Amino acid sequence: MKPVCLVIGAGAGIGGHVGKRFASGGYHTVFCRRSDKEGLDLLVEQVKAAGGTASGVLLNAVEENTLETLIMETERETGPIEVLLFNLGAQIGNRNLADTSYKAFELGWRMACFALFRVAKTIMPYMAARGGGTLLITSATAALRGNAGQHSHASAIGGRRLLAQSLNAEFAPKGIHIAHIVIDGPVDAPDTLGKLLGPEAFARLRKEKGEGKDALLNPEKLSETYWHLAHQHRSAWTHEIDLRPWTDTPWWNDN
Amino acid sequence: MKPVCLVIGAGAGIGGHVGKRFASGGYHTVFCRRSDKEGLDLLVEQVKAAGGTASGVLLNAVEENTLETLIMETERETGPIEVLLFNLGAQIGNRNLADTSYKAFELGWRMACFALFRVAKTIMPYMAARGGGTLLITSATAALRGNAGQHSHASAIGGRRLLAQSLNAEFAPKGIHIAHIVIDGPVDAPDTLGKLLGPEAFARLRKEKGEGKDALLNPEKLSETYWHLAHQHRSAWTHEIDLRPWTDTPWWNDN
Amino acid sequence: MKPVCLVIGAGAGIGGHVGKRFASGGYHTVFCRRSDKEGLDLLVEQVKAAGGTASGVLLNAVEENTLETLIMETERETGPIEVLLFNLGAQIGNRNLADTSYKAFELGWRMACFALFRVAKTIMPYMAARGGGTLLITSATAALRGNAGQHSHASAIGGRRLLAQSLNAEFAPKGIHIAHIVIDGPVDAPDTLGKLLGPEAFARLRKEKGEGKDALLNPEKLSETYWHLAHQHRSAWTHEIDLRPWTDTPWWNDN
Amino acid sequence: MKPVCLVIGAGAGIGGHVGKRFASGGYHTVFCRRSDKEGLDLLVEQVKAAGGTASGVLLNAVEENTLETLIMETERETGPIEVLLFNLGAQIGNRNLADTSYKAFELGWRMACFALFRVAKTIMPYMAARGGGTLLITSATAALRGNAGQHSHASAIGGRRLLAQSLNAEFAPKGIHIAHIVIDGPVDAPDTLGKLLGPEAFARLRKEKGEGKDALLNPEKLSETYWHLAHQHRSAWTHEIDLRPWTDTPWWNDN
Repeated sequence: MKPVCLVIGAGAGIGGHVGKRFASGGYHTVFCRRSDKEGLDLLVEQVKAAGGTASGVLLNAVEENTLETLIMETERETGPIEVLLFNLGAQIGNRNLADTSYKAFELGWRMACFALFRVAKTIMPYMAARGGGTLLITSATAALRGNAGQHSHASAIGGRRLLAQSLNAEFAPKGIHIAHIVIDGPVDAPDTLGKLLGPEAFARLRKEKGEGKDALLNPEKLSETYWHLAHQHRSAWTHEIDLRPWTDTPWWNDN
Repeated sequence: MKPVCLVIGAGAGIGGHVGKRFASGGYHTVFCRRSDKEGLDLLVEQVKAAGGTASGVLLNAVEENTLETLIMETERETGPIEVLLFNLGAQIGNRNLADTSYKAFELGWRMACFALFRVAKTIMPYMAARGGGTLLITSATAALRGNAGQHSHASAIGGRRLLAQSLNAEFAPKGIHIAHIVIDGPVDAPDTLGKLLGPEAFARLRKEKGEGKDALLNPEKLSETYWHLAHQHRSAWTHEIDLRPWTDTPWWNDN
Repeated sequence: MKPVCLVIGAGAGIGGHVGKRFASGGYHTVFCRRSDKEGLDLLVEQVKAAGGTASGVLLNAVEENTLETLIMETERETGPIEVLLFNLGAQIGNRNLADTSYKAFELGWRMACFALFRVAKTIMPYMAARGGGTLLITSATAALRGNAGQHSHASAIGGRRLLAQSLNAEFAPKGIHIAHIVIDGPVDAPDTLGKLLGPEAFARLRKEKGEGKDALLNPEKLSETYWHLAHQHRSAWTHEIDLRPWTDTPWWNDN
Repeated sequence: MKPVCLVIGAGAGIGGHVGKRFASGGYHTVFCRRSDKEGLDLLVEQVKAAGGTASGVLLNAVEENTLETLIMETERETGPIEVLLFNLGAQIGNRNLADTSYKAFELGWRMACFALFRVAKTIMPYMAARGGGTLLITSATAALRGNAGQHSHASAIGGRRLLAQSLNAEFAPKGIHIAHIVIDGPVDAPDTLGKLLGPEAFARLRKEKGEGKDALLNPEKLSETYWHLAHQHRSAWTHEIDLRPWTDTPWWNDN
């Protein structure tokens, strides 16, 4: 039986490409996303066309029991989840405090932070019982420091980063590798950055910074680093890593 | 009319002592805490006995509208809040993941992180309209990094730290001073550490490390730093500061 | 006999103002700087005119034995140094790698990092024998992260920051308070920023951001925080603090 | 012609294994170390026995012109250096301030910090002219924070970390990948940890934590991460990464 890679948050960017990378490396990938059945089916088909196996699930991560059921059913029906990629974000663009509602603030936390807690509560007992497994968490610079307009986002994923560290402290010694991956630059991802910017601005950005210039994080290339992290020898595990295009200065630099 | 200092989370430790320090410096202090009417009255009486003015409110910070009403009524009936000390914590001791319920995780966030967001949403418009004011936030080392057993606490106050930075980015240029105060050591506080440890262990700790040895943070002395921060000239504001007893090595050192 | 405050790097900005603040608080201040006898005498006269006592020394900090002799002679002839302010910087403006010579790189380290080591080696035995004392270190954002053109400066003061932490780990438990003060903004200081910019640009900057606008760190006001740190109760010591004008976003924000 | 991988600091641990990994991946490796001709020859022979090509150089990195000459001669006689691993350390064990001489402090800086500056000054013009290249820097937790007894080591490699960031800010946009690799745990390395501990304690440690337990960083396995970093697509480069054995809690945790 193939090991399973479960991708929570599988759009056309990082989530989709990481899932495809693991499928091509011999995993059965379960893609999971909130909406766009067509996009989901496309990912599964791409995997199959390349000779791999995959399946897809639509679910709303902030609803009760959805993530829990997904994990339990995958374990029961598809096989042991060896790699789980938590790829949910909660970037809603910059909004000043007056424009950030209680509801938006809470939703950000439910998506980006509480969802990881629920995932960890559900998957860790399986992985701990097996003495192994990998939890990859896609994160962003906003997990490292707040910024104007980032009340909801920075708070949610900053809290998540410290949750990842707390999980690591408890579960690394049980053989579970937890890696927090800080994406410090724009990703060439139509489902996230594309939607945030709108189609025209995104097309312009792609033309200006994409293919040939490599000034947008290429999610297919990036997926190699996810694969590498998940296959590090346990004597040399990474917990935190940053990534950005060669053209970008890191967040800590003056711009 | 006196300026008002509103203390949210006014126990016998930091909150109570900071409130008394501001009262002795000419502020009217409003002490606010969840329970223990007797303890609350004692704080008010201590202020009055020292020639100051103060009032007290019991409320449950996680209930809807409580903090919002408190702030609006204080502004309307007592006077402009010049200094607001957010002193709510969410330390529940070390618990492994299996023993940290969804409810506990969410409550931690509601107490330590969402409550600050609600407070900021309510007070910032007043302060911004006046072009001035100070928001002091008592925090802890767990806001800087996760640890075993700190799933709820570190995540909640880590998220809060980045919220404080986001608030600062928006409101410092509007004349509002936001300071995040990292308490990196045990406080001689009967209402928090005392309850966490239990009376006997706390008494032993006090004997071993307290008065004369100064190996517990003395909240009366500590309140001088809160006072100082609130009165820094606006050309030289502090956003983050750490504090610990001389006997303790900082969190970043090997122990 | 008065306690002594020794200021190493006493120009017309932070060093001079901190020295004057301590003199007005009852210390005998020893001002020490490399050049400008006139400027040095002026500081001493200002202290005396205000009813205090002070003395001045010219020396080249990077020369052998200068700092060592200064400290030993001050201890022997003036009195116990209770507070030592290390206020030497090594900002040389932004220079790309090709324009940063071996000599410049080494000089930066000698000024900003090795000089603190020499100072610590000389003063710590005195302070440790007395079981008390305070070492204040003026630092800058460049101690926290490198930047383009900061090869020499960031490396020198970044190394110094970790030296300060190593000193703190050894000497705090011996009763010696070490505080690392991160100045994260432009200081209204004619001898440093003024020289870096040149007189005209500095005059323009002052007009645009200075008095009334408070958008430059005012060293006189700032000196209150130095005074406060040096007088924190030992149960509640600060090791690191940041400071910037209200108008400036912190270094970790996007600009 | 093969691309060249130059390893500065090639003992039997990380340096040796990374050099061998690149040789097996098609690079000509130049191993460089201070002493032990026999150990150096062994590395070269191991590469050749595995079908690769390598050469070896003995030199004293702190002496004038040694590193400069090495790089220039390698470029001229062996080929373009595509990957340069800076693997010099300056760990001298824990020494309190009194036992850390000026000479030891300066030597630590010359070895760990100034040597990187010299290397960068020499190699960057070559790489920048070619619009590509990789500089890998082996670092340690002491680059992130000071500790008791680490006056020299933490200061030297903390300064180096900020130098690496400054280099990155200038040279990443010129196509040069600079990665700072934080080794946060004991490495199974006879030439460094082995010498620090002495043969008996090292043998005990190996028995207790080595093979089968994987509680020491295995430099052969670790070299896969160096290889991965050097071959990341330029749209997704890592500047900083941490590594430790699964059994170890990260430096930021309580122990």
